[in-house]
Amino acid sequence: MTTVGKSVLRTPDDTLSRRLAISACTVDSELNSLQDIRAWITERGAAQLHQVDRVPFDELRAWRFDQDTGDLRHDSGKFFRIQGLRVHSDSGPVPTWTQPIINQPEIGILGILVRDFGGVPHCLMQAKSEPGNVNGVQVSPTVQATRSNYLRVHEGAPVPYLSYFRELGDHRVLADVLQSEQGAWFYRKRNRNMIVEVDEDVEALDDFCWMTIGQLNVLLGEDNMLNMDARTVLSCMPDGIEVSQTDLAEDSLGTALARSCDPAHGGLHTQVETMSWITACESAQTVRTELIGLDKVTDWQRTADEIHHAGRQFFRVVAVSVRANSREVGSWTQPLLEPCGVGQIALLIKRVGGVLHALINARAEPGYLGSVELAPTLQCTPDNYTAVAPSDRPPFLDFVLDYGRDGSVVFDTELSEEGGRFHHARNRYRIIEVADDFPDDGRPDFHWLTVHQLNSLLGHSNYINVQARTLVACLRGLR
Amino acid sequence: MTTVGKSVLRTPDDTLSRRLAISACTVDSELNSLQDIRAWITERGAAQLHQVDRVPFDELRAWRFDQDTGDLRHDSGKFFRIQGLRVHSDSGPVPTWTQPIINQPEIGILGILVRDFGGVPHCLMQAKSEPGNVNGVQVSPTVQATRSNYLRVHEGAPVPYLSYFRELGDHRVLADVLQSEQGAWFYRKRNRNMIVEVDEDVEALDDFCWMTIGQLNVLLGEDNMLNMDARTVLSCMPDGIEVSQTDLAEDSLGTALARSCDPAHGGLHTQVETMSWITACESAQTVRTELIGLDKVTDWQRTADEIHHAGRQFFRVVAVSVRANSREVGSWTQPLLEPCGVGQIALLIKRVGGVLHALINARAEPGYLGSVELAPTLQCTPDNYTAVAPSDRPPFLDFVLDYGRDGSVVFDTELSEEGGRFHHARNRYRIIEVADDFPDDGRPDFHWLTVHQLNSLLGHSNYINVQARTLVACLRGLR
Repeated sequence: MTTVGKSVLRTPDDTLSRRLAISACTVDSELNSLQDIRAWITERGAAQLHQVDRVPFDELRAWRFDQDTGDLRHDSGKFFRIQGLRVHSDSGPVPTWTQPIINQPEIGILGILVRDFGGVPHCLMQAKSEPGNVNGVQVSPTVQATRSNYLRVHEGAPVPYLSYFRELGDHRVLADVLQSEQGAWFYRKRNRNMIVEVDEDVEALDDFCWMTIGQLNVLLGEDNMLNMDARTVLSCMPDGIEVSQTDLAEDSLGTALARSCDPAHGGLHTQVETMSWITACESAQTVRTELIGLDKVTDWQRTADEIHHAGRQFFRVVAVSVRANSREVGSWTQPLLEPCGVGQIALLIKRVGGVLHALINARAEPGYLGSVELAPTLQCTPDNYTAVAPSDRPPFLDFVLDYGRDGSVVFDTELSEEGGRFHHARNRYRIIEVADDFPDDGRPDFHWLTVHQLNSLLGHSNYINVQARTLVACLRGLR
Repeated sequence: MTTVGKSVLRTPDDTLSRRLAISACTVDSELNSLQDIRAWITERGAAQLHQVDRVPFDELRAWRFDQDTGDLRHDSGKFFRIQGLRVHSDSGPVPTWTQPIINQPEIGILGILVRDFGGVPHCLMQAKSEPGNVNGVQVSPTVQATRSNYLRVHEGAPVPYLSYFRELGDHRVLADVLQSEQGAWFYRKRNRNMIVEVDEDVEALDDFCWMTIGQLNVLLGEDNMLNMDARTVLSCMPDGIEVSQTDLAEDSLGTALARSCDPAHGGLHTQVETMSWITACESAQTVRTELIGLDKVTDWQRTADEIHHAGRQFFRVVAVSVRANSREVGSWTQPLLEPCGVGQIALLIKRVGGVLHALINARAEPGYLGSVELAPTLQCTPDNYTAVAPSDRPPFLDFVLDYGRDGSVVFDTELSEEGGRFHHARNRYRIIEVADDFPDDGRPDFHWLTVHQLNSLLGHSNYINVQARTLVACLRGLR
């Protein structure tokens, strides 16, 4: 931050937007080319050997089912616990149900360190393998640490670079907000999403590599390359990264995106109208939840090696044994949540008066702190809806599935969710451009928002859900 | 809102700040003079006869102690319930305790209707008596309705003007956010704070009166005149109301206040640094709560006519019988929470480089949705701290008590809290200006914020607690 004259009064760094835009334009960094980065990812993948095997629950070490509650918990009481949740909802086809849920009340840190090299801000990214990943290493934030991690409950190695995020000192904070994760699988989990810029020299350890925002945007379009934590932190990057092109045609998507990032162009709704819509949705949905013992969950069955829904839908809880050569600890066992089927997550976008808008859904999930958060247009696992009445199928599901490989699909990538908690949680993420007269059925829980409005909400905690954060990061990276 | 040309794209109403500033400057409204308003309040006070008598619990009608849990609840299951809460906190002198708490999970509406008269926006305010008020009627918002109220669980009269807030239509929303109430007494209570501007003719019924923001600011400085709900909604008024004077001396408090409302003047911390501080405070405090039966609360005793703490501290739960001639129903009985002692609530302010800053405390209370909200510099009932070690007394308590009637006290008024739930909940609210070198002890849970930063946070839900909202409304009304 700059200080004005000799005053102690501070105003925002007005060079930041321009500097981030330069980083977003830079795909050929002099520091590391995209080719260097791909070679590094391959090399780290080979170096981080992870052998992951399904095991029965009774081969878990230091994890056990609690005798009183049936909860699956760690002997230390730390990390997380798989409990039961009873849900009462006054909307949706099912008014009440019970389910297993991951309770991890501690707030962790997901942090990206930024440093300027030759006038171009670079992000320090990590190649990190997680037991639930479909493909070994993925590009991860500089720091990805639960509180148990950094207080070193499992007595592993210290977390590299953590001190930059725990002791801010004179470093410049570019973002620092609490964000939720999957509200269907986590009970009120929130992580601190931080981006911190430093001026001092920082050495990149073997598992770490400096890359530009432009390079991250390229990698974001490749299947299972950027992990969930990298995507959520990237979505919290201050605005400026979208408007990095100067030679765009008047009728290009990039021009509509740039206009959408500038509040002066307006939108279908003003900011206060958008806040009012969010408040109305939050007030209209009553979701009451109660943590219960895992033993009290009905319609779910526990066998020797999994906990599954009677209809084999939604997800399974499984146990794995992991042998790694590069983690803080060399081998361990743990439970993972494994979704049934590949998810379909899509954002519909359209241009109104030349300004890009995205169709956002105010969605209730039982694990949110409030009742709703803002979600993409579509977020579901189609396999869970094979037996339901057509009227109970998620809005826009059939539209998205039918669109397939249409030319108006501007983003289409398989990305996976947190491999430290979920086993092979694969989702197809799509951004589909539709005509400006596309009907949104006038549903009160859907609203067309500009990118500027989404960016503004991402400066605060708990507005935008984790799936929408991924798609906002993808949208802002479109070229 | 204005539409730009023939476009459907909308931008904020850029006349709003100026119009609100005119309202804040206008104390002599041609519609109703301050003298008219005072006469109306006196007259409505005489017309709204309220006879409130303490009764033993067994004289409550339709309220009873639940046989299984001991909870005090209404037979309909609506309104609110007095339950127990178990609290685990990793900060503060007491790590774990149980207490009674009011559980009212429904989201109500607190709304002020605004209309232009002769170029001056006026607010439609209500003279409303509540059973817990120390003084009969107080000036209240246009609408103050629990969900049970407006769904007419008690089959009373419909709530006047409610439709303006439930069906927004073409009306202009000036504010619409969810805000918490007392986190020591309410479990996760949130009300929708709404300000809606209409163009059409609206008749003022007998209990209602149009007044300017300038008139409200005068009344705000008088003991127990504006009720809590009016204060919290007023605090959510969009910015513009503070910079309504043009003839201020360079070194006046008004000039420092006006500068503090303009982000261009900067502050001790930038907005992103302030967000980071809030996130750090929210992450640092772990407050875990669990609703329990009222029977399970320890250290509290239930007699025939009250529930009190063993040490006679904090608050009592009592029952009252109310006979009214002007309510939706003519007479009723209900429980009320009665605090022990008068609270001391204070905001320290100082000028830094000519810009006003307020000393804000990130405060944990067990009933908040998250762990902390932003509170005034001091918020406590001194009677609760007579027996504690000096180091456990709230920071700045002795400073505020010693200041008494010093010339630097720029606001000093007794205001009371929600008379529909609390009996005689009286608080002394003060704003005290201190020198720019005033030590804040470098405590990590205190931060000097500008009024612009507070206004910006008030555009969102759940940042600023109800006591701080009252003092922000008072601060913005200083002349």
